[in-house]
This record gives sequence, structure tokens and C-alpha cells, in this order.
Amino acid sequence: MIQVGILGATGAVGQRFIQLLTDHPEFELRVLTASEASAGESYRAAAKWRVDSPIPERVADQTVRRTEPDAIPDDVDLLFSSLPSDVASEVEHDFVEAGYVVSSNSSNERRATDVPLVIPEVNPEHLDLIEAQRANRGWDGALIKNPNCSTITMVPALAALEQFGIERVHVATLQAVSGAGYSGVSSMDIIDNAIPHIGGEEEKMEAESRKLLGELGDGEVQYHDAAVTASCNRIPTIDGHLENVFVEFAEDPDTEAVAAAFEDAETIDLPTAPDPLITVFEDPERPQPRLDRMVGDGMGIAVGGIQETETGIKFNVLAHNTIRGAAGASVLNGELLAEDGWL
Amino acid sequence: MIQVGILGATGAVGQRFIQLLTDHPEFELRVLTASEASAGESYRAAAKWRVDSPIPERVADQTVRRTEPDAIPDDVDLLFSSLPSDVASEVEHDFVEAGYVVSSNSSNERRATDVPLVIPEVNPEHLDLIEAQRANRGWDGALIKNPNCSTITMVPALAALEQFGIERVHVATLQAVSGAGYSGVSSMDIIDNAIPHIGGEEEKMEAESRKLLGELGDGEVQYHDAAVTASCNRIPTIDGHLENVFVEFAEDPDTEAVAAAFEDAETIDLPTAPDPLITVFEDPERPQPRLDRMVGDGMGIAVGGIQETETGIKFNVLAHNTIRGAAGASVLNGELLAEDGWL
Amino acid sequence: MIQVGILGATGAVGQRFIQLLTDHPEFELRVLTASEASAGESYRAAAKWRVDSPIPERVADQTVRRTEPDAIPDDVDLLFSSLPSDVASEVEHDFVEAGYVVSSNSSNERRATDVPLVIPEVNPEHLDLIEAQRANRGWDGALIKNPNCSTITMVPALAALEQFGIERVHVATLQAVSGAGYSGVSSMDIIDNAIPHIGGEEEKMEAESRKLLGELGDGEVQYHDAAVTASCNRIPTIDGHLENVFVEFAEDPDTEAVAAAFEDAETIDLPTAPDPLITVFEDPERPQPRLDRMVGDGMGIAVGGIQETETGIKFNVLAHNTIRGAAGASVLNGELLAEDGWL
Amino acid sequence: MIQVGILGATGAVGQRFIQLLTDHPEFELRVLTASEASAGESYRAAAKWRVDSPIPERVADQTVRRTEPDAIPDDVDLLFSSLPSDVASEVEHDFVEAGYVVSSNSSNERRATDVPLVIPEVNPEHLDLIEAQRANRGWDGALIKNPNCSTITMVPALAALEQFGIERVHVATLQAVSGAGYSGVSSMDIIDNAIPHIGGEEEKMEAESRKLLGELGDGEVQYHDAAVTASCNRIPTIDGHLENVFVEFAEDPDTEAVAAAFEDAETIDLPTAPDPLITVFEDPERPQPRLDRMVGDGMGIAVGGIQETETGIKFNVLAHNTIRGAAGASVLNGELLAEDGWL
Repeated sequence: MIQVGILGATGAVGQRFIQLLTDHPEFELRVLTASEASAGESYRAAAKWRVDSPIPERVADQTVRRTEPDAIPDDVDLLFSSLPSDVASEVEHDFVEAGYVVSSNSSNERRATDVPLVIPEVNPEHLDLIEAQRANRGWDGALIKNPNCSTITMVPALAALEQFGIERVHVATLQAVSGAGYSGVSSMDIIDNAIPHIGGEEEKMEAESRKLLGELGDGEVQYHDAAVTASCNRIPTIDGHLENVFVEFAEDPDTEAVAAAFEDAETIDLPTAPDPLITVFEDPERPQPRLDRMVGDGMGIAVGGIQETETGIKFNVLAHNTIRGAAGASVLNGELLAEDGWL
Repeated sequence: MIQVGILGATGAVGQRFIQLLTDHPEFELRVLTASEASAGESYRAAAKWRVDSPIPERVADQTVRRTEPDAIPDDVDLLFSSLPSDVASEVEHDFVEAGYVVSSNSSNERRATDVPLVIPEVNPEHLDLIEAQRANRGWDGALIKNPNCSTITMVPALAALEQFGIERVHVATLQAVSGAGYSGVSSMDIIDNAIPHIGGEEEKMEAESRKLLGELGDGEVQYHDAAVTASCNRIPTIDGHLENVFVEFAEDPDTEAVAAAFEDAETIDLPTAPDPLITVFEDPERPQPRLDRMVGDGMGIAVGGIQETETGIKFNVLAHNTIRGAAGASVLNGELLAEDGWL
Repeated sequence: MIQVGILGATGAVGQRFIQLLTDHPEFELRVLTASEASAGESYRAAAKWRVDSPIPERVADQTVRRTEPDAIPDDVDLLFSSLPSDVASEVEHDFVEAGYVVSSNSSNERRATDVPLVIPEVNPEHLDLIEAQRANRGWDGALIKNPNCSTITMVPALAALEQFGIERVHVATLQAVSGAGYSGVSSMDIIDNAIPHIGGEEEKMEAESRKLLGELGDGEVQYHDAAVTASCNRIPTIDGHLENVFVEFAEDPDTEAVAAAFEDAETIDLPTAPDPLITVFEDPERPQPRLDRMVGDGMGIAVGGIQETETGIKFNVLAHNTIRGAAGASVLNGELLAEDGWL
Repeated sequence: MIQVGILGATGAVGQRFIQLLTDHPEFELRVLTASEASAGESYRAAAKWRVDSPIPERVADQTVRRTEPDAIPDDVDLLFSSLPSDVASEVEHDFVEAGYVVSSNSSNERRATDVPLVIPEVNPEHLDLIEAQRANRGWDGALIKNPNCSTITMVPALAALEQFGIERVHVATLQAVSGAGYSGVSSMDIIDNAIPHIGGEEEKMEAESRKLLGELGDGEVQYHDAAVTASCNRIPTIDGHLENVFVEFAEDPDTEAVAAAFEDAETIDLPTAPDPLITVFEDPERPQPRLDRMVGDGMGIAVGGIQETETGIKFNVLAHNTIRGAAGASVLNGELLAEDGWL
């Protein structure tokens, strides 16, 4: 068993990490860290547990540690990070310099040229950037990132359609409040309402999707040259990001070809990976956040509403934003790191 | 004062008609009709009043009539219709044949070649189709339509940008539940959820917007040749449709030019018309349904989030779907009919 | 395996029955009935499946039958009913006359003197009323009922406190929309709102709770003589009824005694029964509908906020209204019927 | 015109103060204060305006001042306070010592023996406590309080029933999120959920209601001796607290007597006071938060569902929690202070 830890274990994503790492077949959860204020407390006392399954007993009594390398036992090999991005940048470096491999969900450095941004089913070969990273920075450990939750929802579907030559993407998102973290969206702002802006989210989707679909060569990633334009909205749902995607292609696939491409999307043989990767719904009213966010145990991508338009194809796509879109994404990246021998 | 009536006065849109016609400066509300089952009852008894202002006293005690021409006093000149579209088609004809002018919100016949589909600030000249209509059908009265609520929200903004040569429009909507009528959306379907499909709505937006922006010549409307592609979503809001719009132009306007075009959008001098037509928000988080749906007393169009994209301009637009998008649209059309001498 | 069927299988409660009866250790689901209009269709076509787990494959392809005794195979022994109460009264009689045992969730006849109203952990001995029922009505089969969902939520907690002599109960409910069925609550009525009235619900709680807590003697149930007063509210939650209960006792138990009584509540050894019956939360903010409705796989009763008042004890109680409060209640009654040899 | 100011003008209640004080017939809004960080900014920049009417132009450009006595012009006579209760205690004293009259919505000192806790229609005579306050504390100014929002909702109704001899009250509340302030309730906690606990709220209702209904004699208030027991719940509504009230009386009034008592409730002749004070609904489904919170321009009390119970009377009551329950309450108290010559 690989010994693992969670940096920033008390927040909303931290709680999802705990759900996913309890009873994991390859990882043993050894270490939970949080801010100075919580260090020394039991996890039960430090976290306000809000997930809809009880807090695992073994975790509840574990003592929370400071988020510093010297607080981590030596035999821990892999750390998952869901630190706030403003503190992550410095703290993650401390851990990597100290030799740890960090699979991070935090948004800092996702676009750095020597940091792999990876979805295992989409671009596992980008992990090789770690070599450039170690060479550049003189690190023993490694820092890898998964993309932002709204990006992860869309990109597996786009990757499946890449065979038709993607030229332009317009996407509008309907995002759940959990994507902003526990204090992110006040109830006063969202009941009977929607907010047509999420700070930085559109830029993340536009850049990260092109990095993920890009090609690795000569130690760096050539971004895909598709024009990606996003409008991001927050709506009153708890979990599950729904997205309307409009794609224009070099070729002219019909809806059958597109549906077949989704259904044939490559899977990967890792414990947390869903099979199939993409579930296609025929009912045009699906997928819906509440009904379908748990497809593939929250790691699947749900697609529906595939239609031809005057200029290409439109479809809707949904994924669970704190499982496939955050904690599950980091865990899956951790499994890929282990499988490929980077630990 | 012009004597007016409401066909289908007890439903959600009917209730909005009553709000708007009480104390109207030009119209006197004389007649309320409903289904056979309610005829003969007081309006108070027949309607389950759910608007957030009390039912006007004078209306409450009015007797509801059958929805048939012979139930209408002769001195009534103008009828507003919010009948279910499956019954509207036949019933509206009965009234127009009997000589009434009907300003209808129902979706039937909006695309008929001799039925004017009008937003007064956008295409008032399309009213002239009434001549073709009377010639074709041998009618004394007239039937005119306002567009679907999601179309009305977007088209005034597009019309303001028509000067730049609109070539392609992609639009994703976040629509309130009141757009589907009282029994339209079960609470079980929408709490903590969104539904990425509204039957027929996307086709309505795509066709109606092109008819509204089209040119009238030789007794028919040449549809605008822009490619319009819509994805329509229902979300858990009561009132107010929010839309993400992506536009590609023949020219290359920047955000300032676009904002100026919105602010300079032509208004019309009618009692229910808002001034300005379009309110532009600088805060990218606005407009929001709950905060901004009452702009211009529910008749205004709110715009925000104007940004350049790789291929054009994107912006967000909001309007109140049962005021500007339904009852208010019909009332405004009624005012235009009166102003232009069609009554 | 006991062969079972569901009368009214396509509705919201019907779908929960299917979830609970798939892979049941004692029951084999053989028959699904619905209204005339759906008979002959596959279940997949007849039902609009809205539960958040996929429709079981074996059920999806089953043919829906008419809701009539001659449409049921002879080897079916037990029928679960979630028919609308206005049709249930007649139809359930037809089945019982034809010799079937019907475990019904419908509200008709719950207060009939010869119909057992049962929660297995509370008053299993009331099943003996079946003998009076058969004698009175000349039936071979039997009709038993579970209480209304808001009653089931409260009564197991009250039963645990009966040892202190319950004299008065005031209860206010916060009920989920699924309790009203799919068409029961319009989204226009409940978003950003609450409705302080549910037709007939208060009377059900007041009468059914006293029947459940009553004693069976001489072939009838002596209602418990506590004064029970309820106010029932609908709120914007999907599943899970939360209730504030104020109890006055003959004795004067303190909060520790009350908590101990809850924790020691008797369980019953049946496949669907939870253990413990009642889960007590120390955090005064719990139980909450979204977080705690699945306690005991949706069959548990969650209690919190136990406090002494000037006149007695107050506490909050929560249960899943369509599992413990409806389909699960009927299934558990079915298990009790089998265990006690009534099939 | 009396010159007034708002202490803590940028928060949710502060924004309601501004709505109510713009165009007030007696008060001229001269001063807005906020925390150190905002001092010197325009109000538009300092506040995140979230009320559903535009920010008044004159207020938008006003400069926000520090919350200190020396930042206030000398000719200001009356200050409204909606400071967080943890800072209010100290800061309010500073202002009163400096000679200002402070009408405060903050919860500190509401139960102090020499601080008037007032609802003008219920206990205006309690203002005389100011004399004791000045004598005790050596103050020139005065500090008066309005009760907590859930208390204000219920007490005018109880006061109207006091003629029947109130002995016991059980109340369960369904409270809107705005009652907790902008950061008070995370959207992750309340969508598809309810929270059966609001810290300190039950104690406030139980104590404040008895102080309000108490008699002033010998310079202090004798609390009413009714037993009041409350359970407080947060639900997903924006504004409007709904409460289920169960009352036991010395006498035995029937529903007609109770309804008449509500309708005859005394009003007070002040600019912001509603007339009638209490609006009685016959429809048992009313009052509802979204439909009825604006009764009496948000200052009215709405009552419905009056029914006899085995032990007394039950009814439902609703008021707008940030108007009648907070900012409007303080403004009304300010009007009473002016009317009674305390400024």
C-alpha cells in the first residue's frame, strides 16, 4: 500500500478526498493537514463534516497536522492537495522540494510550462513533463495538476471528438455551488437566482482545455489551436456542473458519428476510473445534475442532447464537480503516477 | 379609453395581464374569459391568484365569461390572449373572424407568413402584414403575435447590434420556471437541479429571432440569414430568463462600440415601453434574475458581461419572462396597434 | 421467495418500491401494474424514471399490467399499493376480495376500525386486527396500511418516550415536496417559499399517531389519549421530513433519559428494518434533510436538539419520507406479514 | 427634518435602512458609517448592493465614514445601528455617551433592565425606561432596541390575543436566510435542506417576547409570565419568516374571536407603521413568504390558518424579517422617539 496524505483536509474538497481514499485499494490514508489553527485537534473536531455519508471512524479520530513538510512521516509518498490557491503556490513548492510527489487540485501553476496538467483518460503522456520540471527546478519530488472542475467536465467529451478536427468551441456552464467551496456562494446570492460570472473561470476553461488537448513535444506542450470561448454561470444546485457545448469541426460528423465517438471513448485501467468514460443519454432532458451526477460513482461523464446545428454539433455534458471535477481527479492522477512509476 | 379583454385570464400569464392592465392609461379592462368550467364564477373564485401583489378589487369581483366571441360585449376592441397554444389556434381564429383584433402571446402561428410577429422597438413595421392577412383570410379583425419569452429576451440586444452585421449567434439560456406556466415544472424536477431541454424552445428561438430581424417586403418577411443556434435550460428561478449570447459579426466591433450600441438602442413612445430599452451593467456579475428582472418595471432588457472573444463578442442578457417576455409583450403590441390605427 | 407485485408502479412511490424490491432477500418482484393507459407497455416506456439510480434492467423491460385482479398471476401472494387514495379504496378491495394480501401506503381506510395501521417496530401486534377484518368483511386476503409519511417520522420517537407518559404533543413539520407526488407541488409555488398547509395532513398526524400508539383489545384499537396538535408546512426540499416536536409528560424525564430512551428504542429483526431504529445527534444543527435522510438506508429515524422546556421536552426528528415514510414502510409491513405467517 | 445616520450601513440590514430612509418624510439621511476599511470610499464602492431596487443616486456618492462619534456632524440627532452584535456593545455606548440617541437592531443588551425593547404598536410606553437608563448610566443620549426578527413576527399577534390571557406558547419558525446576514448561511448548507437550529434564536424569542408583553412599573419591566417555547429552523427562502404558533389561554376564545382580535389590533400613527397592523388570510395556504412578505410595504404582520386545537388555538404568522423584523423596526422606533419627544 502506498502511504498518502491530504493537504488541506478539512474543506469541501478535502472531505471528498477522505470519502474516496477510505477503502482505496492502493492508497492508505496516513496524514491529514490543515491550517495552524486546527493542528493538534482530532479531524472530527477540526472539520465541519457536511458530506452525506458519515465521517469514517478511523479518520474521525486522526490528529490533524500542520501543513508543513516536517509534520509528515517519511514513509508517505504521495500528497493530495486541495489548498486555497493563494497559499498553495508556496506551500506546494515546500513539499515538492522536500521530495514529495504532490497531486494537486489547486489552480495555481496549472498553465506553467513544466507542470503537467492531466486527465488520465485524455493526456496521460503529459506526465513526462515531470522530467523537465525536475531538470528546471532541481526538485526530487513532482507537482502535477488536474484541471478546473468546469474544464474536466467538458474535455473528455472534446477529446473523444478530436478525430473530427475541432476548430471552435462555444460553451456555457451551469455550475453547482460546491465548486466555490463552503464559503464561496452566499445563500442570499443564489436562491431564486443565477450569477453569470465566476471570477477567472472562463479564462481557465479556455486555456486549460487547450493545454489538455495539446501535444507534448520537446519538453513542452503545444496548446491545441481551437478557439474556445466560455461563459460561466453559477446556479442553485449543490453538485454537478452542466454545460451546453457547441462545436465546429474541420470535418462534418453527424449525430450518430458523434454519439459513437462518445461511447467509444478510451478508458484507462485504474481503480478510480469509470468504465465507460462517457455515458450517452438519448432522452434530451438528460443528463441532469441531481439525477446523473453520480454516474460512474461520480467519476463518469454524462452526455446528452446531441444535435446537428447549422455550423456543427451541439451537446450537453455533465460531471460531478467535487468528485470527477476535483478530489476524484487528483486521486485518479495519483493512481496514474503510481502506475507509471513516478512515486 | 379602449375597451379590452383577456382570453384565458386565470393562468400565470393571465394574472400578469391583469397586473399590467389595471390602471392602464389607454386600456380599460372589461372582459375576462376562461375555460367553460370557470365561466360564471367571480374571478376571485376562478383564479388561484399567485402574483405577489394583491388581486385588484375591481377585477376580483368581475364575472369570468366563456372564451367565445358571443360572450364578449360589442364595444370591446382589443383582446389579449394567453390561451394554451393547443386551443389557441382554433379559438383565436373564431375571435378574429368575428372582427376582433387579438394580440396574442400563444405560440401557434408565430411563423405563419401572414401573421405579424412583433416587438415594437424592433420591427414595428411588420404590423403591415395585417393587410396581407386580411386579404388572404378574409378577416375583419387581426391576429398579431409576440415572440416566445426566451426570444424576446435576446432579440432587442441583437437588433441593437445589427449595424455590425450579425452572422452567427450561439445562445444558451437559463430560464425561470414561470415560463412553463403553473403546472409546467414539477418541484420534484427542479430543486437542486437543472433541465437541459425545453420542448420546442430551441426551434422557436432560432426561427422567431430570424423572423423578427427580417425585412418586410412584398407582403412577406424575408428571414434574417444569420445562423442562430440555441441550447435551452430550465433552472430553479421563479422569474427572469438569463442568456449567454455569443455573436460573430461581418464587422469587428469592440466592447465599447457594442456597449454604446446597447445604450443607444431605439425606444418607442408607448405607455408600457421602457426607457432606456437596454440597461448595461458594468459589474460582470450582473444582470442576475432576482436582482434585475424588474428593470424598467419588468419591461427592460438588462445586459452585462460584454467581452471580446476570438471570434466576436459575448454578452449576457436578462428580461422578465412573464412581463417583457409574455403579458407585457402583448400589451405593448396592443399599444402599438392602437397608436398605428389598427383598432 | 415470496412472489410480490406493485399496484401503481409508475409514480414516485412506485419507483421507490422498485428500488427497494430489487435484490430483496425474501421477495421476488413479479408484477407491475399501472393505469389502463400504460398497460401493455414496457415499464421503461410507461414510467418517467426520476430516482437517482438507474432503472434496474430486469424491471425496465417488464410489461406493465392493468390494475385488476385477473391481470395478476396466481402465484403472487403479496401486493404493495401506492395508488392514489381516491382510486385505492375501490381497487384495493377488489384485490383483497380476490384473496390477495395488500400492504398499502394509500391513505384511505387508515382509520377504519378493522384495518391494521402498523409500524413494525411500534405496534406489530395490531396485525391481529386482520382476524376481525376477515370476519367482518368475509375476505380471504387482508388489507393493512402504513401511516402517512409525516406520522411515521414522529411516532417511533414518541413510542420510545411512551414510558414517561405522553400527555400532550405539539408538532410542526417541514415537509419535502416528494411527499405530494410528482405533480403535487408546482415549482412556481415552492421556490423561495414555504406553504403552511397540506390538505388533510394535520388531521392524519393527529389521528394516526394516536391509533399507532393505542392498545389493541377486544378486536379494536383504543386510541392513545394524548392530545396531538400538528401544523404542517411544505418547504423546498426534495426528500426528508423534518419535524419540531414538543412533548408534555406525566413524568418529568430529563434530556439524558430521553436520549437514552431513543437510543434504546426496540428494533425488529426484518430485512428492511434499520438498527438502530433511532440515531441521536448531539450537534444541535442535525438532523438535516439533505445530510441525514439516508440514515439507516433511508429507513432510520434521526433525532436531535433534545432540550428541556418549561413544560416538557422538545426535540427534532427526521425521516426519509418516500422510503421510511412510504414505500419502505409498506415493504417492512410486508416483511412482518410474512414473518408472522399472514401470507 | 431630523438629521439621521446609519451605523454599519453597508451590510444587508444597512441596505434596507437606506431603502427605508430615502424619501422618508421626517428623516434626512446624512451619515453612513462602516468599518475602518471602507471609510473614505463612496457608498457605491464600499457596499456590495444586493437589494432588488437600484441604489439611490444620492446615497451612492456619499462618502462612508468611520464608526466613531467624532466622525458624525453635530446636527445629527438620531442614529440607526445594525452593527454586528459583538462590536455593537462597545460602539453603541460610545455614541450614546457622546449624546446621540441610538435606535438599534443589534442583539446586545436587549434584555438589559434599563434598555427599552420596543415594538411601537405593542409597548410604546416602555420608552420611559430611558429615564432609568439615563439615571443609571449618566448618559445624555439614549439606547433603545427592537427585538430579534423572529420575535417581532410573533409578538404583535400575541399582543392582540393578550386579552384572552396567554398562558403557554409553543412556536416553530421557518426563517429566511437573510436573517443571518450576507455571510450567515452558506448556499452549500441550505439548498435542498433545512437547519433545525439557529444559535441563540430560541432563547431570544423566549425572553424577548416576555419582555415585550411585560408591564413597566417602578422603572423596570415585569416579564410576562407565559411559558414560551420555541424551535427555530432555517429554510431556503430569501426573505420572510413564517411561524407556526400554538397558544393556550386562560379563557377559551374561538376562531372568530381570535380573528376579530387580530383584525382589531391597534395601529399607531407613524409614517412607517402599517394599517392594518395584522392582515388575516382566510385561505389556509396563506400567508406564504414569497407572496405575502411585502404586506403593508413589508411592515405588516400576516396571519392565517387560525384553528382551534384540543388545548387552545393555533395559527401561522409571517413578517418580512429585514423590514418589519430589522431595519423597519428600528426606523419605526426612531419615529416613535421623535413623536414622543426623546430626540
